[in-house]
This record gives sequence, structure tokens and C-alpha cells, in this order.
Amino acid sequence: MNAIIITIGNEILIGQTVDTNSAWIAQELNLIGIEVSKIISILDEKEEISRALDEAISSVDFVIITGGLGPTNDDITKKALADYFGVKLVQDDQVLEHIDKLVTKRKAEMNERNIKQAEIPENCTVLKNNLGTAPGMLFKHKNATIVSLPGVPFEMRELMNTQVIPLMKQTTSDLQIIHKNILTQGLPESKLAEVLEPWENNLPSCISLAYLPSPGLIKLRLTAKGSNKSLLEEAINSSLDKLKKVIPELICGYNSETLEELIGTLLKEQGKTLSTAESCTGGNIASLITSIAGSSAYYQGSVVAYSNEIKENVLKVKGCSLNEYGAVSKQVVEEMAIGVKKLYKTDLAIATSGIAGPTGGTFEKPIGTTWIAIADSNGVYAEKYIFGDQRERNIKRASLTALNMLQKRLLATNL
Amino acid sequence: MNAIIITIGNEILIGQTVDTNSAWIAQELNLIGIEVSKIISILDEKEEISRALDEAISSVDFVIITGGLGPTNDDITKKALADYFGVKLVQDDQVLEHIDKLVTKRKAEMNERNIKQAEIPENCTVLKNNLGTAPGMLFKHKNATIVSLPGVPFEMRELMNTQVIPLMKQTTSDLQIIHKNILTQGLPESKLAEVLEPWENNLPSCISLAYLPSPGLIKLRLTAKGSNKSLLEEAINSSLDKLKKVIPELICGYNSETLEELIGTLLKEQGKTLSTAESCTGGNIASLITSIAGSSAYYQGSVVAYSNEIKENVLKVKGCSLNEYGAVSKQVVEEMAIGVKKLYKTDLAIATSGIAGPTGGTFEKPIGTTWIAIADSNGVYAEKYIFGDQRERNIKRASLTALNMLQKRLLATNL
Repeated sequence: MNAIIITIGNEILIGQTVDTNSAWIAQELNLIGIEVSKIISILDEKEEISRALDEAISSVDFVIITGGLGPTNDDITKKALADYFGVKLVQDDQVLEHIDKLVTKRKAEMNERNIKQAEIPENCTVLKNNLGTAPGMLFKHKNATIVSLPGVPFEMRELMNTQVIPLMKQTTSDLQIIHKNILTQGLPESKLAEVLEPWENNLPSCISLAYLPSPGLIKLRLTAKGSNKSLLEEAINSSLDKLKKVIPELICGYNSETLEELIGTLLKEQGKTLSTAESCTGGNIASLITSIAGSSAYYQGSVVAYSNEIKENVLKVKGCSLNEYGAVSKQVVEEMAIGVKKLYKTDLAIATSGIAGPTGGTFEKPIGTTWIAIADSNGVYAEKYIFGDQRERNIKRASLTALNMLQKRLLATNL
Repeated sequence: MNAIIITIGNEILIGQTVDTNSAWIAQELNLIGIEVSKIISILDEKEEISRALDEAISSVDFVIITGGLGPTNDDITKKALADYFGVKLVQDDQVLEHIDKLVTKRKAEMNERNIKQAEIPENCTVLKNNLGTAPGMLFKHKNATIVSLPGVPFEMRELMNTQVIPLMKQTTSDLQIIHKNILTQGLPESKLAEVLEPWENNLPSCISLAYLPSPGLIKLRLTAKGSNKSLLEEAINSSLDKLKKVIPELICGYNSETLEELIGTLLKEQGKTLSTAESCTGGNIASLITSIAGSSAYYQGSVVAYSNEIKENVLKVKGCSLNEYGAVSKQVVEEMAIGVKKLYKTDLAIATSGIAGPTGGTFEKPIGTTWIAIADSNGVYAEKYIFGDQRERNIKRASLTALNMLQKRLLATNL
């Protein structure tokens, strides 16, 4: 089974919107064993849509279309689909009722455009969009299933999760798929691939391996595909046992997806609490940690100290440390970590202080210079990093590096 | 002049990598008046590459290819291009020398894979890649110019900025393009489009309008294209004057891109400082505000108070307020705003307290219930919102709603 993803929308082609929908859809389809052979982004133009549909329908089993279902004049996907299939647009009463409810709930009044959103090509099956006014639509044409979804990411995801993926799974129901994720740390991808080559070459034919690198982590994904679930489980467990013998010291987790999730698991296991004091990362570490549901069990909070006064008055960094060494220094970042650990009464604390850019760099401390400290019951230690000259990237790298330092400390304590 | 962007790489089609390169390239081409008619992501497969090239070369002036130029076996773009053009791969001495220098600088040794990177299709012009080992390549075929660039974002950008874009500009030098952004707030996209329809229908033919909605803001972009710059400027200014008469109360800015940027501008203009106290948003507001370069001029920082103890001990929320009304209440969020405003000595403060989910909801306070307070010299006020049941989205919406409340307050003060 394979699929083509088509994204419709001028905003993609003028570069205003990064097409994150396609990556998400590709990932989900991959997990249920459907291969994506192509991703296409096209303009809101009837001929383009028709040409893309022709190509896709003749070459794959599933066509997933997103975008162009909004209420404005430039959204023409619905009309283009109706014309392509040679059918009329008709008003769907249930969709209209749903839109009316949503509009009323939003304390607005129904207008002509809202009413138009209830029109659908007469050959489609409606996929009810609980989160928005644009209905999802499903078509069968030739041997292909075509799904048209709104481009708003959370509406698209909800429709995929609750309606499209379950339906796709039915068509692949004789195929069993098992995934196993292994998180590793300590070797870059190219080096890790070299070390794992003999093991990889000996994997049974039902198992495939994917390297999924993310900042601070490389996830290995084993996928077993076949008809007999218990045989697949056996194969995957035996491959995993062999892997554990090859890189015992590099494996740092199994089921987490991100560093912040892994840290949450470790903190809960160890019954420890955490706080953060952030200067250059400006709340980004707190934001990452609290993105995990249930993080209030181990995370007390952060002091985002964007000025020296806050560092001094709230975190109790010594005035003389700030004067003598500057805010971006080992002394200050260590005092920040100690300060927040004490103020928030936690077992562990992270602190960051750096020059995110684009200005503020000096010869001695160029843009990207960042100090990160970890404080725990054994004391405090800090490390210096020099990242690049791009603000956004520096903030991200500093945040992930800090989480990485904490993770290593937690794993070491665990031994 | 128009272009097609082709991204080559299996990692895109399994959803492991989001294709940010294409959005960046599309944006740059758009600014110099080259329209991107399609973005295609395909697998590292010779037939796919050949098919995509056929389509692109026959329909546009420029084809920009990224990816598949790495040193590993799955990178086949160069071989596929040579086969497509019916030429051989030959070793380029200058490229080899450059790779040798880079490898030596990285304290590694030249290996077979590095040497292979110096091989190029014999009909190409090399675009020297100062930042990496994979050379950029330029081909002329039929009436199209084809450029092949490495997929590593910073290498691709450097090659585009220093070599490809200057070359493209030469071909479009007689075309003048002017953009004007107008930020609006207060009406959803569908309603705004309705109000603006008569104005839009009367725009001169040299001007086009795009709706660029982002959370909390809708940006209108006017683009004028033609040969006479002063006439274009006149046309755009006159259209803008008419727009101002249609929606005077909805326009909230011109050159900012986001709410956090707009707030930064307003705070700087008014010479005011800001702090935040975040519970449910967990540092996300701080992170948004500090994503703006220069935010330290007006932003002092945040107290991320993820527990009641921190609310009480650091923000000085009264214990009886927490006991009587609970953490998610008007009383507590107002005391949080007052507390951080005092602690951080700022002119304004934002506070949030809510139930982000997926657990913690009750009948009286369902998941998504969020209180947001703004404190300023006139006192403090709070509003209650009930968002949805998705954690990530609740955090995002609460953050943007808070920034929005602040922005309105700043604009009102400004009157």
C-alpha cells in the first residue's frame, strides 16, 4: 500500500507556511505500513489540482489532500474536486447544522461564507470535523481512496487520528506491524552506523531499521512486518537483545520520544524535583519540560531572569560576581543554579546564561557563548559552549544541551 | 519567471524531516519576483528524479533541487543528473582540493567517499560550497536553468544567497516588486474577507492581496508588480489609504510579523517594562517574548510557578486565596500578576493559571479552563477562557490570548 500527499495552498508556495502537515502525515502512514512515494505542494488553482490528482490516482492507493477548504475566495479545493469527479456541490444538512453550532458557540453570526462551507461534492462521504467548520471528505475513484482534509494542523490531525487512519488500517489489517524504539546517546549518526553495521546486516528479513536523529538523541526504530504477530515479537526481542550486547553503554531509554520526556521519566523514577533559572533560553527550557503532561509531579518552575537585577534580587547572584565576571560566566550561572534550587526548594536545578544574539557579542565572548550549570545535592558544576550566530538556533541548542546535561547526571546518579 | 523546487530524500517521505528548505527557497524567490509553481519531495530513486526533472524542465524557467548529495550510498542525485543529461561523472580538481582542505581542517583523513564527492557531471558549472564538501551544480538544459544544492540548510542557504539568487536576479531585473504588510485584529478571516470584498475588487490590476492568518493576527499583504517603481508605490499607497477608511479600528500595525514582535514595538514606543507569572503556560509566554531580538530592553523575565508553593512563597499569593478559590481562579491569577509586577519591578505584568490537561479537570473547572490577568499602573483585571482538551494547543492558545490582551491594553493606553 502506498500514498501520495498533496498540499494545496499559495501560502506554501510563497514560503509563508512551512509544510509540517505532510511530515506528520508521512510519519503516521509509515507507522501503519503505508509508504509515501511523493509529497507535492501546489497552488490553489483548478488545473494544478486536477493534474496532481490525475498523477496520484493512477499511481497509488491513497491520496491525502490538505488545504484549500477555508471560507475565502482563494480556497477552491472543494470546487476543483467536484469538477474533477464531474459532480455538483450540494448542501449537506448535517454539516450545516454542525457549522451553525460552532458559529453560535463562538458567539458569531452565520454568514454566506459559513453556509457555503456546508456545500460538498455530491459523491463524497463526509468526515465530520469536530474542531472546525470545514468538513473532511472521502472519495473512492478508480482504485484509489482520496481524502481531503483542512490544512489547519490540529483539525487535520484529529480527522486523521479518529477517522482516516482507522479506515486505512482496515485495508492493511492482515499485515502486522510492530515497532520498537531504542534511544541512544554518545555517538554521532555516521559513527553509530559504522558500529552497528554487522548487527544490522544480520537482522532477520522481516525487520527493518531506521535512524531517527534529533537534537541530543538518536532514536533507532526497529520495525517488524509480517502476518504472524508472535513470531514478529520474538524476532524483534531477539534483535534487541543482540543490540544491547553491542552498545550497552549508549542505550539511554526505550519508549520516550524526546529528551524532555526521558528526563520526566527519570525524575519520576528517582523521586526527584527540578527547577530552572533561565537567562538566554528565556523560558524555553521551562516550556519544553512543561510540554509533558504530568510534569507538575517533578517540576516546580523557573525563574526567567532576563536582567541582572532579577539575577541579583530574585536568584541572589552576588553583585560582585556580576561585576567581576559578567552575566555570561561560570560564576554567575553556578550561582543562578544554586539560587533557584534554594528558592524553589528542589533536588536539582538547571541554569543558563549566554549571548543568544544577534547583538551583544564581544571578542572574548562572541555571540553564541553560553554557560550552563547543573546543581544537585553533590554541588554545582557548569560547562561552556559556543554555539552559532543565529538567535533562534542558539536558544534551541542551549535548551537541549541543558536537558542533555541533566539527563546524563540523572543516568549517572542512577547507576 | 517561475520555478519548481524538488527535494530529494527518503527522510522527508518517512516524515522524519520537515522540509524547511523549500519554504525558505520559496520565500526568497517570491521576494525577487519568481513564482514557485510547485514543490515536490521525492525518494532517492533514479526514475523518480528523472520523472520529476522531465516535468519541471518542460514547464518552468528554474528548477531548484536540494538533497541527495551526501557521501553515503543512498545519495544518488549526482549520478541521476549525469544519467539524465547523458553525460559522465568526472573528477573536478578544484573541488577535490577544496574537500581535501575541509577534511584536513576537520582533522580527519580523506577517504574514498570524500574523493567521490569531487566527481561531477561533466556538463555542470560548479557552485563552490564554502561551508561543506558537496559542491553545488548548475546546468542549462533546453530553456531551463537547473541548480542542484546540498540539503544541509546552512550550506544550501549560503549557496542560494551568494550565487544562485544574484544570478536569478539578473534575469528579472526589469521587474519591480513592492510588498506592504498590514496587521489586523478583531475579525476572523472569513468575516474580514467579507468586509474587504468591495475594496479588494477595486484594487488596481498591478496589485495582489494575500491573507496570511497566524494565531491572534491576520496579516494582509499587498504586492505590486510592474516596471515603474514610483507608479507602483503610488498605487500601493492609495490602496492602503482606502483600506484605512474601511477598517480603521482593525489595523494594529504594519511591519511586525507576530504578536510578540508587535508587543515589543509597543512597549519600546511607550518606554514600559514587562514581566510574566506563568502557571499553565509553563514558560511559553516568556519563550515567545524572548524570541524577539532586543527583548531585554523591555522584558525583565518570568516566574514560572508550576506549584502552589511557588505561587505562595515567590509570588506572594495568599494561602487563603489558594485554599478558598483554588489555583485556577480570578483571585489567584490577579495576585500572581500583582506579585510578579512587584517582585520584578515592572510597569506591566501578565499572569496565567489554568488546566492544560489532559488530566486535572473537574465539573466546575473543565480541562482548558484558564484565567489570564494583566496588571498595570491602573490596577489588575482578569478574564476567564475555556479552551479545548488538548494540552499543547491549550498552552499555545493561552499564551497568544495573553499576548493579545496585553496588546489591546497597550493600544488602549496609547490612545
